Amino acid sequence: MPRADEFQLIERYFAPLTKHGDGEISAFDLKDDAASIKVPQGKELVVSQDALSENIHFFENDPLDLIAQKALRTNVSDLIAKGATPYAYSLALGLPKDFEEDAIKQFSNGLSQDQDKFGLTLSGGDTFKSPNGLIIAITAMGLVDEGAYKSRLDANIGDIICTSGTIGDAALGLQVRLGELKDLPKEHENFLRHRYLLPQPRIELVAVISQYATASMDISDGLVGDLIKLLEASNLSASLELDKIPLSNAAQSLPQYIETCITGGDDYELLFTVPKIHMDEIYGIAATCGVPITAIGEVKSFSGDMNNRLDILDKTGKPLSLTQNSYVHF
Amino acid sequence: MPRADEFQLIERYFAPLTKHGDGEISAFDLKDDAASIKVPQGKELVVSQDALSENIHFFENDPLDLIAQKALRTNVSDLIAKGATPYAYSLALGLPKDFEEDAIKQFSNGLSQDQDKFGLTLSGGDTFKSPNGLIIAITAMGLVDEGAYKSRLDANIGDIICTSGTIGDAALGLQVRLGELKDLPKEHENFLRHRYLLPQPRIELVAVISQYATASMDISDGLVGDLIKLLEASNLSASLELDKIPLSNAAQSLPQYIETCITGGDDYELLFTVPKIHMDEIYGIAATCGVPITAIGEVKSFSGDMNNRLDILDKTGKPLSLTQNSYVHF
Repeated sequence: MPRADEFQLIERYFAPLTKHGDGEISAFDLKDDAASIKVPQGKELVVSQDALSENIHFFENDPLDLIAQKALRTNVSDLIAKGATPYAYSLALGLPKDFEEDAIKQFSNGLSQDQDKFGLTLSGGDTFKSPNGLIIAITAMGLVDEGAYKSRLDANIGDIICTSGTIGDAALGLQVRLGELKDLPKEHENFLRHRYLLPQPRIELVAVISQYATASMDISDGLVGDLIKLLEASNLSASLELDKIPLSNAAQSLPQYIETCITGGDDYELLFTVPKIHMDEIYGIAATCGVPITAIGEVKSFSGDMNNRLDILDKTGKPLSLTQNSYVHF
Repeated sequence: MPRADEFQLIERYFAPLTKHGDGEISAFDLKDDAASIKVPQGKELVVSQDALSENIHFFENDPLDLIAQKALRTNVSDLIAKGATPYAYSLALGLPKDFEEDAIKQFSNGLSQDQDKFGLTLSGGDTFKSPNGLIIAITAMGLVDEGAYKSRLDANIGDIICTSGTIGDAALGLQVRLGELKDLPKEHENFLRHRYLLPQPRIELVAVISQYATASMDISDGLVGDLIKLLEASNLSASLELDKIPLSNAAQSLPQYIETCITGGDDYELLFTVPKIHMDEIYGIAATCGVPITAIGEVKSFSGDMNNRLDILDKTGKPLSLTQNSYVHF
């Protein structure tokens, strides 16, 4: 069988992904140069773009359906953190020259499953030859009510700092993957590996963010570093209580790695601030939807001292000092 | 001076590119994870994504401001071909590890100039480490009146096939660049090189497309191949008159390269069909705005014979046979 060309691959594996739309998103079976997207009255569009490249954001031997899902989910996670409901996405896919049709099939299967899970549809994109390894650049679009977009700039003094799920699992999972963490119980090892491989965007909490959050973002570069970014953007400071940070059983079994947990990347949990008076309602929603929300600190005024943006207090109230705040990109 | 990190580069060179918006596009100085984009009532969004990678879509020693502009313009060209006015764009930028701050500065200068020229603004994006060479994936957004999106699917029998500008210059420019075309007069050589290096999206013709076109696309993979795609999408056939295809002086001086001209890529001219009765109005607009529009053929019914999609007739009316219709991607 002759090797499928670009247009055949698009027709076979990507055009079907445009069928999930409800008529508001016209992708013309990917036979046109663009898509037409309607934004319902009273809504505005939220646009986020994340790019992943092989051996930096994922490993070349990771399953391709999970790579596709990780690429989509890092974007979906951004939308949710803004209080937006996922709507559509555009996919630029850089394929190395030896990429097989079966791999494309597996990749598109992963996307198809996640489109159903998160309620969005492919609107278009581009394929190109990658110089080396797979490259995935997704632009995701979501909808919020007009004026309801949640940035990271509007935290207020006295707000409670909340996070979803558990923190640090993905960073530990990467250590497992790199062979740094050995002799773990198999169940912990599998759990941590999976948390690194596949983020779980908290779609159940979109309404919490859009209704109650003052500032919000997702944690991609580590809890501490990302919280500092939120505080800088809001021109405020905060205190963080170390023993309140929610940890999985696996992470709790590795107390010597607490710094990895709170500074490592790839959590894709929500980090947001809310007025104290709403905490009871928020806990109620968290209980109903089964995704834990934990209060981990409080927003304070900023003295102007850059070295005093965030106090991390251990359970005796003593400030903790870290060797590095955040996953470093370059 | 220490090497600038990702966040410093974004703050210095990309955040200023978000200032061109008119308040409808909130990019939060690129300090947030996403952007909020308002779509005015009565409009819908047109979204296009094109990715370019080094040594495939451009050469590594091309000037970086022009590389940036080529990346943006290939997307702007798609928007215009859909009858859409450019509005915003998101930029995913894969940087090789030895990329210098001066190069980023030059790159962002190119974008800044083109934002002014084409009336759009940066809304967000992502930077990532490229495994090899520069990679640029842009998602461009434009606005059309509701229902006014022009696809390539709706040509009608009897419509006139039109193209803007001149055809084949970029394909010849690539040959010059590759050292295949020698001993040209300097003025032709420079003209062709420039046509390859920097597309000229025909923003002056947006209104022609949105008002008069039945089907429309831009020519990126060669006139013949792209016209066949339009005809396939519309389930029609056509005849094309070879001696009507508009050629620059430089291309006219190379008659032995006519096949390269009509099948080579990178024209980024408009290819559209219009009802015959509107041709006089269209010529009038073309004359006013200074961008030539040329009628090059006519849309016909399709017999069902795949080998009979497009007749290319020379000036004696004899059909021409080509070795290949289009630039091949993979």
